[in-house]
Amino acid sequence: MTLYRLDASIRVEGSHSRALADIVEEEWNAGRPDDTVVNRHVGVDPVPATAWPLAVQSLMAPADEERTLEQLDAVALAAHEVDLLLSADAALFAVPLYNFGVSQHFKAWVDLVITDPRMAGEAPATAGTPAVLAVVRGGFYGPGSPREGWDYATGWMQRILSEVWKFDLAVVEEEFTLVGVNPALDEFKDMAVELRAKAAQNARERGRSLVGRTA
Amino acid sequence: MTLYRLDASIRVEGSHSRALADIVEEEWNAGRPDDTVVNRHVGVDPVPATAWPLAVQSLMAPADEERTLEQLDAVALAAHEVDLLLSADAALFAVPLYNFGVSQHFKAWVDLVITDPRMAGEAPATAGTPAVLAVVRGGFYGPGSPREGWDYATGWMQRILSEVWKFDLAVVEEEFTLVGVNPALDEFKDMAVELRAKAAQNARERGRSLVGRTA
Repeated sequence: MTLYRLDASIRVEGSHSRALADIVEEEWNAGRPDDTVVNRHVGVDPVPATAWPLAVQSLMAPADEERTLEQLDAVALAAHEVDLLLSADAALFAVPLYNFGVSQHFKAWVDLVITDPRMAGEAPATAGTPAVLAVVRGGFYGPGSPREGWDYATGWMQRILSEVWKFDLAVVEEEFTLVGVNPALDEFKDMAVELRAKAAQNARERGRSLVGRTA
Repeated sequence: MTLYRLDASIRVEGSHSRALADIVEEEWNAGRPDDTVVNRHVGVDPVPATAWPLAVQSLMAPADEERTLEQLDAVALAAHEVDLLLSADAALFAVPLYNFGVSQHFKAWVDLVITDPRMAGEAPATAGTPAVLAVVRGGFYGPGSPREGWDYATGWMQRILSEVWKFDLAVVEEEFTLVGVNPALDEFKDMAVELRAKAAQNARERGRSLVGRTA
């Protein structure tokens, strides 16, 4: 069995979303020591900004119209991304919140992937595949906080993964990862430690359950 | 006076967001016949996917650490985008909903622009600038509809433009633009005609008010 892991952090060192996903992956590796992990770092090696529009142009053009080489390349890239995703039995998406919204690189990847016929429509090839989405937010967005309602990414990612692509999805969230980085947040140090421990525990449980769900 | 206009549609022909923004621009030109419009087509000429991470790396590096040429180019690109935006007295953003979320190209542009010191922090250079956001959705997302709650872009764009960048913002929305394109929606033809007429009327009023607000 294979785990597909996508990271959308633009950082390699010090990335909290990677650290959270690492815990899930540890549990996967503990439960499936002979299996492999397919990595896709869309934050470091992003899909080009032109790929999705070109793939859409190819889709929308009449059947008898010749495609440009650029369009064919974009369609091939979409197919390659989908091949990687579908090569696995389970999936792990580690995506930070950036500027209160979705990672531009994760959105670019989703837009491109959804152009492939296997991932569009009512019966996507990922239907029923167990998956974990690990979301990390620098601030705190809980009820009553000044940022309540400012997370426009998590809900969208859940819709796409769970309702459009029909993954069997579990979500792990961590907040306040900017505590310790931004001195203005120093008063929340204890709370951040607690939130991180809780997120790590959840990630561990989700990782174990991911193994169980592919049994 | 100058109007800055950003289009995020990946189409040039047949784009509903462009058509809606054209109405706003017509009113601008009628009210200010001797003024110019600065155009930025981020859906057709997108910011590279690597620009924002490079600009962030440059920002985050210690002051005495040397920047790479790539990082310096990304910082210069951010500054160029902000120069264009700030060269105008009013702004018009025409952004379609794509896959229930924000345009990847608009998000990439926002991420990059926000790295510039003039657009970050509590006193962004656009504070008080009159602006119109024209949003177009292919489906219908109204209360009670199957897609209620599926628009994850408009709320985010309003937050960024109105609350983060403090534009004096008006919003024009059009829905059901896929009626006439997707045969499954043919039963909604009359409703779509009505929605379009209403959106056009709103766009005309917002365009006039944009002229008035820069008087």
